Amino acid sequence: MTLILSNEDVSRLLTMPDCITGLEIAYRELAEGRGVSRTRSDTYAPTSRDDALYCLKSMDGIAPHLGVGAVRINSDILTWPQDGGSTRRVKAPAAPNARYVGLVLLFSTETGEPLAIFPDGVVQRLRVGAANGLAVKYLARADAKVAGLLGTGWQAGAQAMAAVAVRDIEVLRCYSPNQARREAFATEMTTQLGIEVQPVKTPEAAVDGADIVMCATNTIDPVFFAQWMAPGMHVSAVTRRELGRDVIDRADRVFLHTPAETPINTLSAGVVLPELEKGKGWRVTQAVDFAKLPLLTDLIAGRATGRATQDEITCFINNLGLGYQFAVTGALLYAKAKATGAGRDLPTDWFTETEHP
Amino acid sequence: MTLILSNEDVSRLLTMPDCITGLEIAYRELAEGRGVSRTRSDTYAPTSRDDALYCLKSMDGIAPHLGVGAVRINSDILTWPQDGGSTRRVKAPAAPNARYVGLVLLFSTETGEPLAIFPDGVVQRLRVGAANGLAVKYLARADAKVAGLLGTGWQAGAQAMAAVAVRDIEVLRCYSPNQARREAFATEMTTQLGIEVQPVKTPEAAVDGADIVMCATNTIDPVFFAQWMAPGMHVSAVTRRELGRDVIDRADRVFLHTPAETPINTLSAGVVLPELEKGKGWRVTQAVDFAKLPLLTDLIAGRATGRATQDEITCFINNLGLGYQFAVTGALLYAKAKATGAGRDLPTDWFTETEHP
Repeated sequence: MTLILSNEDVSRLLTMPDCITGLEIAYRELAEGRGVSRTRSDTYAPTSRDDALYCLKSMDGIAPHLGVGAVRINSDILTWPQDGGSTRRVKAPAAPNARYVGLVLLFSTETGEPLAIFPDGVVQRLRVGAANGLAVKYLARADAKVAGLLGTGWQAGAQAMAAVAVRDIEVLRCYSPNQARREAFATEMTTQLGIEVQPVKTPEAAVDGADIVMCATNTIDPVFFAQWMAPGMHVSAVTRRELGRDVIDRADRVFLHTPAETPINTLSAGVVLPELEKGKGWRVTQAVDFAKLPLLTDLIAGRATGRATQDEITCFINNLGLGYQFAVTGALLYAKAKATGAGRDLPTDWFTETEHP
Repeated sequence: MTLILSNEDVSRLLTMPDCITGLEIAYRELAEGRGVSRTRSDTYAPTSRDDALYCLKSMDGIAPHLGVGAVRINSDILTWPQDGGSTRRVKAPAAPNARYVGLVLLFSTETGEPLAIFPDGVVQRLRVGAANGLAVKYLARADAKVAGLLGTGWQAGAQAMAAVAVRDIEVLRCYSPNQARREAFATEMTTQLGIEVQPVKTPEAAVDGADIVMCATNTIDPVFFAQWMAPGMHVSAVTRRELGRDVIDRADRVFLHTPAETPINTLSAGVVLPELEKGKGWRVTQAVDFAKLPLLTDLIAGRATGRATQDEITCFINNLGLGYQFAVTGALLYAKAKATGAGRDLPTDWFTETEHP
């Protein structure tokens, strides 16, 4: 049978510590080249709306030690609203019942069969959080107690969960330009994490004195700047665009998630992406050779050196996600779902064939 | 609702002429850059079997004029059996009930929603056949009557269907080293196509005097050679590997399907692919610059010149498939399925989400 799981199933079955532990083991396989990931691709075309583009995004990965491969697909209606001085990349929930479209298909490497199909929403933030959590685990000071969070959306929640999973965080300060959102987030996360989460009115108030700063926004403009960096700080971002120029120069050690600088972008004629235009500027203004930065996976596998002193400033840029992450977290999810009888069983024959593909 | 279709549905609903007509219109959109296709990727990892690899293959494409995007996924257990002097690339039907795993997911570019999910087996050969059929339509002599077919498998059947759809073929000669297979193929295709299909004992007997030669094999070694080329002939192949060295040099006009020379290959450490090894040799021995060859899409869009005289030798290499083909044929299929009430309806909510992906 092929298992159809929902986000409710995923939320119930998969914890942040599970994902951190699973990815920590798996990233060694990835560092050694046994695990494989096909670089994410974003394919863009016009829609009938002047203010929106269609983006078909996909990424594949295989985790041999878990016997699974995964494809993660997003079918997005994208908009770029201006919000004050900055531009955000926003997905419109345009599917029936005002829903988004993201799917993970999990396959067996032994039989090829589709083991499970599930929406990507919960898993995707868990794996982003887990990756940045691993960076905190390997790079932040062991005695880090104060964390600053820029962003209070879906991704930001996972960043907070991850920081708390790997360090004894006592205070988490969160900033969003939207007062109602940051206050609701603080209330919700205080309950969920059991620590003090403070909403703050400026980004400076979030980062000043923080041992760990985590950026988790959907802006395509920088939100964290070099002048805010202080000795001993660990900084992380969920996109490279969040970091202002000179942040990489100022940091003592910078790690990337993956060597690919950008997705494989394929654009319909005439399509212009705001973030690609800005991204060009970003690249030019950075003096550091992006391709030579060490990877988080190398750090975890003991192939790269992490923080050497209490005063060093460390930085992790989750520059691009990996299909491999969905294989690993998908395998953990699938095992738990099978063990607990979760999900809907559909006949695997519906998704396989006798004709030669 | 999201429609689950079977290969039986696809066989019943989609004809070769439908696919040829649909792709002919669509390839103009592709030539103009409005239609988009993300280059196929093949991601390989070991299995527990010494004689098999796991391959997760995917390709994406968007056809704006039809309002759809598609992802085609194959989850294959691959083997490379030796057969006499040649090596074939063979997929093992290792999924439950001895089945293969290939899927197409079709999405709306207006809402993002998954419109349909169906196995790829029937569609995939129809679109390969249709592409090569379009090459025959645009490149072969108008009075072509004799076709030679190298290969008698699943793909070969579609090549025969396509040739008959675009030219008044009177005799089709088919060759396979396996006598039983070529005789069964000839009997079946004679009935299906209503023309004379002759099984022949040697490849020379298939190609000698043929106006059109179509290669459709799964060998990773060449099956067609320059010395067999004769004035006025049109030659096509479903992989670049089928053509011996000098075939491209000898042809007067050569068209490719897509500019990408190879898939995006990502290999687990230690994995060696027989065809990649041989492919290197192929490339070196060809004097022609692969990247400069014109495309079938340009020919259809009137941006490249086709056959100029009755004596020219023309050649089409279907060097790599396109996700775009699955978007186009998928849209045709979906429209017919909706019109006839075919398939199983599943709630679209199972494949969408309220969480931000």
